Amino acid sequence: MKKIIGIMGPTNAIEDDLINAYQIGKYCAENNYITLTGGLKYGIMNEALKGAKENGGLTVGIMPTDDKSEYSKYVDIPIITTMKAGRNYIETLTSDIIVACGISAGTSSEISLAIKPKKKIILIGLDENTNNFYQNLAPNQVFIAKNYMEAIKILNS
Amino acid sequence: MKKIIGIMGPTNAIEDDLINAYQIGKYCAENNYITLTGGLKYGIMNEALKGAKENGGLTVGIMPTDDKSEYSKYVDIPIITTMKAGRNYIETLTSDIIVACGISAGTSSEISLAIKPKKKIILIGLDENTNNFYQNLAPNQVFIAKNYMEAIKILNS
Amino acid sequence: MKKIIGIMGPTNAIEDDLINAYQIGKYCAENNYITLTGGLKYGIMNEALKGAKENGGLTVGIMPTDDKSEYSKYVDIPIITTMKAGRNYIETLTSDIIVACGISAGTSSEISLAIKPKKKIILIGLDENTNNFYQNLAPNQVFIAKNYMEAIKILNS
Amino acid sequence: MKKIIGIMGPTNAIEDDLINAYQIGKYCAENNYITLTGGLKYGIMNEALKGAKENGGLTVGIMPTDDKSEYSKYVDIPIITTMKAGRNYIETLTSDIIVACGISAGTSSEISLAIKPKKKIILIGLDENTNNFYQNLAPNQVFIAKNYMEAIKILNS
Repeated sequence: MKKIIGIMGPTNAIEDDLINAYQIGKYCAENNYITLTGGLKYGIMNEALKGAKENGGLTVGIMPTDDKSEYSKYVDIPIITTMKAGRNYIETLTSDIIVACGISAGTSSEISLAIKPKKKIILIGLDENTNNFYQNLAPNQVFIAKNYMEAIKILNS
Repeated sequence: MKKIIGIMGPTNAIEDDLINAYQIGKYCAENNYITLTGGLKYGIMNEALKGAKENGGLTVGIMPTDDKSEYSKYVDIPIITTMKAGRNYIETLTSDIIVACGISAGTSSEISLAIKPKKKIILIGLDENTNNFYQNLAPNQVFIAKNYMEAIKILNS
Repeated sequence: MKKIIGIMGPTNAIEDDLINAYQIGKYCAENNYITLTGGLKYGIMNEALKGAKENGGLTVGIMPTDDKSEYSKYVDIPIITTMKAGRNYIETLTSDIIVACGISAGTSSEISLAIKPKKKIILIGLDENTNNFYQNLAPNQVFIAKNYMEAIKILNS
Repeated sequence: MKKIIGIMGPTNAIEDDLINAYQIGKYCAENNYITLTGGLKYGIMNEALKGAKENGGLTVGIMPTDDKSEYSKYVDIPIITTMKAGRNYIETLTSDIIVACGISAGTSSEISLAIKPKKKIILIGLDENTNNFYQNLAPNQVFIAKNYMEAIKILNS
C-alpha cells in the first residue's frame, strides 16, 4: 500500500504556510505517496492538494460536508462525511504521517487526535510556545521543522 | 473525478453473490471506475475488491475498525474509521452508485441510508419480498437485476 | 440505570403512527423509562417526545444537526452531533429497545442497524411485506404489533 | 433545558486535578446542571461523574465504546458510540461549557474542537505554556483558573 501523508493547516493561512503546504504536496506526488487533506477549496487544504495534483500525485479529501460547492477541485477521491470537524479523527487515523502547516483550532484538534494512534507528526514554522506545547504532550512523536525542506528531511528519516 | 461504485453485501455470502461481486468489481476496473466497499477480508467486501484488483482497478475501503488484521489485502486506500457500522453512511455518501449482492442487516442499512442522498441502487439476485420492500421505499432509485450482467446494463443506463 | 426506549419513524407520518408514537412515549414516562428519538420537531420524533414530556418523562434526542431551530421543544437532553443520518447508529446503540411507528428510509436504516447489536425491535402497524422482510433478517429480535397496546405488551414481555 | 457542563481531563490524572473534577461535578449537581464526560471508569471522567452523583446530580456519558465493562458506574445516561476519540466532538458540541482538569492528548482535542462552536472553555491548574497556547488560539473563549473555586466563579460570570 502507498503511504498516505496528511497535510493539515488553517483555512486562513499566511503565505509561508501555503508555500510549505504546496511543496509538501509536490514532494508526496514525486515520491508516489498519497496526499490527504480535509478536502475543501480553502487555505492549506486546497494548496497541499494543488501541489500534489500539479505534479501528478493522487489525492484524497476527507470531506466535512456533502455540499460539493465547497470541495477543492484538486481532490481525486472525495470521501464524503457530513461530520464537520468530527471527520478530523478519520483524517488522522487514515494518514501515516501528519504534517501541520500553521496552526488553528481545527489543526490543533488534528494534531492532538494523531497522538494516541501513534502517528508521526511534523510541525512546520510554528512558534516556540506551540512547539513546546505539543512536544510536551508527545515527545517521541512530534518533530519540529522550520520550513518544508526540513520537514522533507524528517519525512525521510 | 472518477465514478465511485460501492459494492455491498453479506460477510457470509453464497456463491452466486460472490460471483456477482467479483464480476462487478472487474467491470469497474475495466471501465476506470473506483471500487468501494467496507474494506474487510470477508465475503462480498473482499470479493468485490479482488475482482477490481485482479483486473487493474483502484480500490477504496471504508474501514469500520483500526485493527489492520481484518483488512482485505485488495484495498489500495484504507480510509480508517473506528465507527463500526457507523461507517456505512460514509460508504453510501461516497459512492455514486450502490450495488447490493445479497442481503444482511448491514447491507440493508447501507441500502436504506443511500436513499435520502438520492443514490442509484442496484439489487442483484434478491428475493421478491426484499425487492418489493426497497422498491416501495424508493421507487425511482431502486433497480432490480437477476445477475451481474443485468446489473452492468443498469449501471450503463 | 433506567431503560432507554428508542422510538423511530417517518418525518411525514400518518395519524395512526403519530398516535402510536405518542402513546409509547406516554407509556415510557409512566414507567420511568427514558424516551429517545432523533430529536427533531417533525413527525414521529416530535410526537413520541411530546407523549413522554406531557406525562412527566425524561427525554433524550440524538441530534443530526447543530441547527437548534430544528430541535423539538420536548427534548430534555439534546446530544448534538452534526452527522445527519450517521447519528442513526448512535440512536440504536443507545436504546435498549427500538420501537418503529411507520416506515421510511431513515427508519429502515435504524431497524437494520439495531439488528447486529442484538436489540429487541418492535414494529407497529407496518404492512405484511415489511414485517416479513425484517423478520427474515432477524427472526429472534423482530416483534410485530398491530397497535401501541400490543407493542406495550411486547415491551413488558 | 438544563445547562450541560462538560468536564474533561486525563485518564491518568494527578490528585489536584481529580479534586477539581469532583468539586466541579458536585457544583453542577448542586446547581441543577447536567454533568457530561467521556463516560469511562477512569481518571477525570469517573471523578467528575462521582462528584455529581454523590450530590444528587444527573450525569451523561458520551461513550467511546460499546464495551460496558469500561463504563463508569456514575453514568445515568450512557450515549453509546463506537467512535473512540471521534466521540470527543459530540462531547464538545453537546456541552454548553467545557471545563478541563489537567491536560492530555485527548483533552487537547476536546478543547480544540470546542473553539469553533464558540463554547466557553475553562482551564484549571494548567501550566503557563499550555494556558498561553489556548488563549492565543481563542482569546475570547478560554478562561484560566488556578483551582475549582476560581473555575466556579468563572462558570457563574
